[in-house]
Amino acid sequence: MNVDGKPYRSIWVNSDGWSVDIIDQTRLPHEFSVLNLQNLAQACAAIRDMAVRGAPLIGSTAAYGYYLALNTDGSDKNLATAYDELLQTRPTAVNLRWALDRIRGKVAALPAAQRAENAFAEAAAIAELDVETNRQIGLHGLKLIEQIAAQKADDEAVNILTHCNAGWLATVDWGTATAPIYMAHEAGIPLHVWVDETRPRNQGASLTAWELQHHAVPHTLIVDNAGGHLMQTGAVDLCLVGSDRTTRSGDVCNKIGTYLKALAAADNGIPFYVCLPSSTIDWTISDGLQQVPIEQRNGIEVSQVSGRLKNGEITSVSIVTEGTPVANPAFDVTPAKLVSGLITEAGIIDATESEIGRAFARDSSN
Amino acid sequence: MNVDGKPYRSIWVNSDGWSVDIIDQTRLPHEFSVLNLQNLAQACAAIRDMAVRGAPLIGSTAAYGYYLALNTDGSDKNLATAYDELLQTRPTAVNLRWALDRIRGKVAALPAAQRAENAFAEAAAIAELDVETNRQIGLHGLKLIEQIAAQKADDEAVNILTHCNAGWLATVDWGTATAPIYMAHEAGIPLHVWVDETRPRNQGASLTAWELQHHAVPHTLIVDNAGGHLMQTGAVDLCLVGSDRTTRSGDVCNKIGTYLKALAAADNGIPFYVCLPSSTIDWTISDGLQQVPIEQRNGIEVSQVSGRLKNGEITSVSIVTEGTPVANPAFDVTPAKLVSGLITEAGIIDATESEIGRAFARDSSN
Repeated sequence: MNVDGKPYRSIWVNSDGWSVDIIDQTRLPHEFSVLNLQNLAQACAAIRDMAVRGAPLIGSTAAYGYYLALNTDGSDKNLATAYDELLQTRPTAVNLRWALDRIRGKVAALPAAQRAENAFAEAAAIAELDVETNRQIGLHGLKLIEQIAAQKADDEAVNILTHCNAGWLATVDWGTATAPIYMAHEAGIPLHVWVDETRPRNQGASLTAWELQHHAVPHTLIVDNAGGHLMQTGAVDLCLVGSDRTTRSGDVCNKIGTYLKALAAADNGIPFYVCLPSSTIDWTISDGLQQVPIEQRNGIEVSQVSGRLKNGEITSVSIVTEGTPVANPAFDVTPAKLVSGLITEAGIIDATESEIGRAFARDSSN
Repeated sequence: MNVDGKPYRSIWVNSDGWSVDIIDQTRLPHEFSVLNLQNLAQACAAIRDMAVRGAPLIGSTAAYGYYLALNTDGSDKNLATAYDELLQTRPTAVNLRWALDRIRGKVAALPAAQRAENAFAEAAAIAELDVETNRQIGLHGLKLIEQIAAQKADDEAVNILTHCNAGWLATVDWGTATAPIYMAHEAGIPLHVWVDETRPRNQGASLTAWELQHHAVPHTLIVDNAGGHLMQTGAVDLCLVGSDRTTRSGDVCNKIGTYLKALAAADNGIPFYVCLPSSTIDWTISDGLQQVPIEQRNGIEVSQVSGRLKNGEITSVSIVTEGTPVANPAFDVTPAKLVSGLITEAGIIDATESEIGRAFARDSSN
């Protein structure tokens, strides 16, 4: 999507034709800074230091990183060690392993000298697949927004609330929850997005608001506490969120606080849709509350807030006294009963085991 | 309650016997600093600059401020101008006008020379009345906590979630939502309090966590997003919150985000109680959602976060880029249907028009 009026993806091949550029997302929203990756070490650092984040983008960065490693040294030994090094950057990222396996599968049987070239093509294919998946999510979600817009006066905006960043910065392009929003904006439908700041890491304030600002989509930042009030007072027509993991029965694990917004949407009769690529459906589990382990992150994310001082310096301030006990669960589970539907690359489906199984032709009893 | 092991109120007469001390709450949680008030200008500044906040404490500070004004000059002219000056410090604070009217009513008919002495006594009576009201709220709420504790193993803590600061710092002592907590703690019931940080102004992180820490009540700070997850996973036994205004039918206007916690409590069968002095019941309105105007505060409270730098300096950082649109509704309304009960100085009552009317012997049809 656009940055300063110019279209970008979150990862792309440099104009030199071989090295890879990414946006240093740790500097956002205060600074737009591009990092050039030329070797394995730089790619690993980009993932480890969270210059890139979001499962799909991590996968694509690992794929290009693997290519860069093989570009330096296409040997069997490097094929093995680069795989391991990249895998260690974010051990729990499912897309990372998937992308590495896919590249290795394509190039392992080739002569060393041909591996880089083929890895490059495969990394590009992985990135394109992500873009296409999100584009499909966007097209399906667009229909939903069109239906809401049709019930409004011509110039009346459709008000959408989103939580965290399931935007193009978390993917290669379009995003998941933002794909329908960008599609509707391009289609000329008047829109306004309520952006939850999403404590503790403030991805809404830092990333989603920044994305929407640069793509000229009208939006307003709010604290996470405000969404319920806005829904009670008719200021929200639709909630769109992403998902880190969805069970085969439609329970949605997403950024902490998603569940509270789903409750408020249900209480006020507002549609609450979850946008996800089918690759994030976990077919092995059914009961999200019982079966999805919730990551407990470092309390420093709660007690310290990062931002920009008046002098431009980016730093952190402590909002509590030293020694204040802090808990920091990173995700919660929204039960399927609160989900109006899942917007996937295959269409909009009910958040039920039978519908999910049917849509993706999986035998969900396995 | 205790600060560094020593009992404090939020306002008290200095050891000199005539001037008045308050805690500078703008410095909390990073610094415990006492301000000495000797005249009207200092009292007005304390209220205006929010060194004191919370309706009951504002009322008591205004009462003592009125006394200090009359101590300087007991004339009819000063009786009128000091009233006006104090009233202008926080024009919407209902307790402020009530306290000033009460003092003026007591001293207006007296000779100028006797006014200060009588205003002093009346200010003390106002402060004592607040303490006693909160103590009663605490005693009634204590029974609720005892009932929950009785169903637990001996050493198993009762887990209470609270939002914002309805603590002793907002009143003269005990607080409203915290009164049952302090009572139960004094009674030796094992307790643990989940403290919502309460964006945007972070009163939970700055004030409630500080209070509990100093009174040695076990507690954990969480982001506002986390409470739903904690309720889903059995980590919360009881929610206790305060109220800025309660309609005669039991709808509760309180700090933004309260409604989301009430929804989560209802969804998980967790009791959700509101602690309030009956003086905050608004007998003139019935439908909270339709009739309570919600204050829209400055967006800078959202875009800027105040805290302490590593070097000890207290400053603010911006979490967004300049020009990001921000909305900042300060309160929301929790419908009576989500409220398990109201803990008042007269006992615990249902959040219904008939029960509220009966408890306070008011004809609620007026």
